[in-house]
Amino acid sequence: MIRQQELGITTRGRGTYDISDRVQEAVRASGIQTGTCHVFIRHTSASLMLSENADPAVRRDLETFMARLVPDGDPMFTHDAEGPDDMPSHVRSILTQSDLNLPISGGRCALGTWQGVFLWEHRSAGHQRQILLTISGE
Amino acid sequence: MIRQQELGITTRGRGTYDISDRVQEAVRASGIQTGTCHVFIRHTSASLMLSENADPAVRRDLETFMARLVPDGDPMFTHDAEGPDDMPSHVRSILTQSDLNLPISGGRCALGTWQGVFLWEHRSAGHQRQILLTISGE
Amino acid sequence: MIRQQELGITTRGRGTYDISDRVQEAVRASGIQTGTCHVFIRHTSASLMLSENADPAVRRDLETFMARLVPDGDPMFTHDAEGPDDMPSHVRSILTQSDLNLPISGGRCALGTWQGVFLWEHRSAGHQRQILLTISGE
Repeated sequence: MIRQQELGITTRGRGTYDISDRVQEAVRASGIQTGTCHVFIRHTSASLMLSENADPAVRRDLETFMARLVPDGDPMFTHDAEGPDDMPSHVRSILTQSDLNLPISGGRCALGTWQGVFLWEHRSAGHQRQILLTISGE
Repeated sequence: MIRQQELGITTRGRGTYDISDRVQEAVRASGIQTGTCHVFIRHTSASLMLSENADPAVRRDLETFMARLVPDGDPMFTHDAEGPDDMPSHVRSILTQSDLNLPISGGRCALGTWQGVFLWEHRSAGHQRQILLTISGE
Repeated sequence: MIRQQELGITTRGRGTYDISDRVQEAVRASGIQTGTCHVFIRHTSASLMLSENADPAVRRDLETFMARLVPDGDPMFTHDAEGPDDMPSHVRSILTQSDLNLPISGGRCALGTWQGVFLWEHRSAGHQRQILLTISGE
């Protein structure tokens, strides 16, 4: 059995957005007990990650790390038509994930205790982001 | 239903190679309407990425970024039997993807407007690369 | 057909652990001939990677690279309740993989000749790690 569902996420600019509950709700609604939930983001300037879900300092530190590794406005970048955060957002995306696959067990995504599913918006401005879920199993 | 297909890609050395059309053609030929297309590269010195498909400057900038982050011939690397690009090619591979899963909807990979599927050759010399597609669904 | 299986891995601290044989054995036991084997780690301070399996110097060099890119005790990190390796372990995890999908062909994971599946422990101390395999196919 396969079920697909779109999730629209409105971001308020750079930062991480917890989508774990929305993914779990889609899995529950599918009725699938055992299988996988594939999460796909249809953009190249925002990405997905599984990260620690308890201490918000972890996501702040991830942001700090990325800001140092891929600085906005770095003169080595030539693709800057949309501003100093344009090319860094593509680099951050390729260093993280555009798709995640999550195991489903007992009708739920079998995440670890400390794992959350996050959309990571890399652009400075807010955007409307589309995620496509493909839930497969029995 | 499951269909597997090999894609052979001949590279001309370091750089990105758009394989979107070949992946889409395999999905079309499978007849599968809803599901996923798994793309797997059977190498550890070339990788896969989903990236912006319109402006070639994006891929040039990604190359520039990687050349700075993981310089060829960096003296910290001890594994250099195949040359100064040997170990950097393994590092670049683990920082990007060896497998991608793409959602299939309406008989096509449901990529975003600006998303392309690229093989990223990390070795200086050209290589013959093998990709294995596993297309699953209904 | 879908089969799930947990793998428990006891690590002895930071480093890479080859789990290829355990994954292949689970695929063999499932009887599935064609499909995918999804490997998922239920933690955010250890990750998965496909890497070169022949020369141990490759994994040593990967460790050296990560130690330079994400140094333990870097003062930019504020999340350090569990020590100087706490936040770096989360960063290393998001730069590598929490889930891998491997194609199954002829009853085995169709890895390339030089590809091995590794758990990468990022914490200094040993941990008990849980991996969940979801094997799907025909």
